[in-house]
Amino acid sequence: MKNVRYGKCVKCGRTYAAVPDLTTCTCGGILDIVYDYDYIKERLTKQTLAARSEHTMWRYRELLPVEETTAPTPLRVGWSPLYEEPRLAAQLGLKQLWVKDDGQNPTASLKDRASAMAVAKAREAGAQVIACSSTGNAASSLAGNAAAAGLATYIFVPSRAPKGKVAQLMTFGATVISVQGSYEDTFELSKAAIDRWGWYNRNAAINPYLSEGKKTVSLEIMEQLHWQVPDYIAISVGDGCTIAGLWKGLKDLYAIGFIDRLPRLISAQAVGCCPLNRAIETGEPWHPMEENTLADSIAVGVPRNADKALSAIRESHGLTVNVSDAEIMDAQKLLGHTCGVFGEPAGVTGTAGVKKLCEAGILGSGDSVVSVVTGNGLKDVANAIKACGDPISIPSDMDRLLEAFSERGLSIK
Amino acid sequence: MKNVRYGKCVKCGRTYAAVPDLTTCTCGGILDIVYDYDYIKERLTKQTLAARSEHTMWRYRELLPVEETTAPTPLRVGWSPLYEEPRLAAQLGLKQLWVKDDGQNPTASLKDRASAMAVAKAREAGAQVIACSSTGNAASSLAGNAAAAGLATYIFVPSRAPKGKVAQLMTFGATVISVQGSYEDTFELSKAAIDRWGWYNRNAAINPYLSEGKKTVSLEIMEQLHWQVPDYIAISVGDGCTIAGLWKGLKDLYAIGFIDRLPRLISAQAVGCCPLNRAIETGEPWHPMEENTLADSIAVGVPRNADKALSAIRESHGLTVNVSDAEIMDAQKLLGHTCGVFGEPAGVTGTAGVKKLCEAGILGSGDSVVSVVTGNGLKDVANAIKACGDPISIPSDMDRLLEAFSERGLSIK
Repeated sequence: MKNVRYGKCVKCGRTYAAVPDLTTCTCGGILDIVYDYDYIKERLTKQTLAARSEHTMWRYRELLPVEETTAPTPLRVGWSPLYEEPRLAAQLGLKQLWVKDDGQNPTASLKDRASAMAVAKAREAGAQVIACSSTGNAASSLAGNAAAAGLATYIFVPSRAPKGKVAQLMTFGATVISVQGSYEDTFELSKAAIDRWGWYNRNAAINPYLSEGKKTVSLEIMEQLHWQVPDYIAISVGDGCTIAGLWKGLKDLYAIGFIDRLPRLISAQAVGCCPLNRAIETGEPWHPMEENTLADSIAVGVPRNADKALSAIRESHGLTVNVSDAEIMDAQKLLGHTCGVFGEPAGVTGTAGVKKLCEAGILGSGDSVVSVVTGNGLKDVANAIKACGDPISIPSDMDRLLEAFSERGLSIK
Repeated sequence: MKNVRYGKCVKCGRTYAAVPDLTTCTCGGILDIVYDYDYIKERLTKQTLAARSEHTMWRYRELLPVEETTAPTPLRVGWSPLYEEPRLAAQLGLKQLWVKDDGQNPTASLKDRASAMAVAKAREAGAQVIACSSTGNAASSLAGNAAAAGLATYIFVPSRAPKGKVAQLMTFGATVISVQGSYEDTFELSKAAIDRWGWYNRNAAINPYLSEGKKTVSLEIMEQLHWQVPDYIAISVGDGCTIAGLWKGLKDLYAIGFIDRLPRLISAQAVGCCPLNRAIETGEPWHPMEENTLADSIAVGVPRNADKALSAIRESHGLTVNVSDAEIMDAQKLLGHTCGVFGEPAGVTGTAGVKKLCEAGILGSGDSVVSVVTGNGLKDVANAIKACGDPISIPSDMDRLLEAFSERGLSIK
């Protein structure tokens, strides 16, 4: 990889050759992939990019830590739509608002970007098997992307994992190990198994390439905006890997001169689980929190990518905002009603945060904002149903329809 | 619309000016939109098409029945991925196999193509409200596409519609009427309400523009195959509108000289509900059937687009194949395991049909096939759960993991 210099520990600064199965520093710190931007600048221009017909995350190859000979992964990951939403902007009192619907990825979440990267690196490593522990989007995206590439997956889930998610994994042919115990127990068994069999490791905060996959979301946002930088980009934050990737992509583009300034990040967490935002707000180190939110994908009390995430928020002079579950479900309906975008609870938490910041007068008519929706609402139908109430239920009879409309106070034109 | 000549009844041949709110013929027949292919040929070439950056269904404007001034609808509909699947082809004994994953549309089904067209035509008609009856996907796609365009929707679903689909509708802000009865009962109530209130009608087989939206799936398939015609295109069939649209797109391309022959269609229905295939197989008129299949989107006992669908299958010298629910769920796992594509039961019925035809020796090593997956499996997680069986369930203990692997005959490398 001529475009990559090395992996560098974000804690102690030690560097490592960027081998495909790179994990963490001996000090325990997470590694960051460091690029040779001079090399990249000579090879990637806005014009060469605009001419490419590859509309996936792999159109940004020069900025990705893969060998030049590594083939794109099979599923169409990335290049999700960025919708300008003037009606919602007006409703919230913003100058401009765009929604990046990353629930439009193959397994319906932004995590496909990280899992596709894991599959590409596993192939470089000559691995036939990839493993991870997760109950949610990381697992399903890994299972799907690996299946398409002909790689086997071993996925460790805590026994409380919802059956629907397990069904998705099993449909993709993963070997699913449901561990009778806590998430920590699950993680430990996955670690022991990965150590024993040498499987390729897709555990977040262990594998430094994952956030490099995720950063393609901001590369796309900026290209889709024709390199016009918005004032803010809002995203939900759980483990921290996603916001770290988002920021990395922006810094890459700044480093190679594609954008001339950096937006500020908006880190949105749930009130019931906001260890990273709390650290920013108090100026103290982060401490574990309970996981009291229905937004399961960001219910992470012990974030494993805390260092990278906190740096990203601070470096960008970012805003933090914590929203209640009710505010999350309101945002889900708002995006559905106004934009035709159906996000899962964690997926719409960024938008909930934007709305709250608008209502507080912190964001307003001078501001342009991109809000990233990180996962599709079909992943968690139960919560959407709870938020929406029941439909009108009647026999096939016009009188009953008229009655029902009247009972609900609907005046039909 | 200079590219459109008129709507023509498929039964009696009577023609109608192609106004935006065009419905059916006075004789009760469905209308087909007839184009001026000479006009289109002068304006659309493979080169002009290849140069377009619009990667949605609207890239085929010259072949679509919309005014030149009509804006594309807001959501990114169409240009779903077409995956070549050499491993699955080898497994089934086919020369070549591609999977068109139309579950990657904004509301996760092919029906987005028809609903986007309905929204475009409703705007041309100056309508503020659109209504339809649907087993699910037509409804959710209409609700989503209309919400994004700022139009209201009234949607009639049978009470058996999966919860995921209803949750989508409510999140998109539709007024949902869940009808206690069959699809037929649901349709009748929607018809009465549409007549009463004059809403824009998005019912299949009433609105002749819908299959014109759906035809974009075959326009895309052929462009993605660089105009190399496969031997067969397989798709699941319920109401009949989709296969009719698929065929229309192919005939359009043939008429303007983009392809030099036509593929044969494979019409896949469920054994428990196959009125159209039965008509083809017996050579008799179609008769209603019960709706005995878990593939809810094609559980249509009284298909409303029978005329167009039967013509399409016959004109293409098509094959029919009826599959059991067990074969449908096997196909779901097969696509998941081998391709990383998660389809809903009706969505994978085409692939189930291809598999069955391969096993029967009707398709084989000389054949190239495109199989269209019409909807995402996340729409119906309950059935996927039933099909998948249970994961390995153990405490966090390496010995127990080894035991479990050994019991299942898994040899781990």
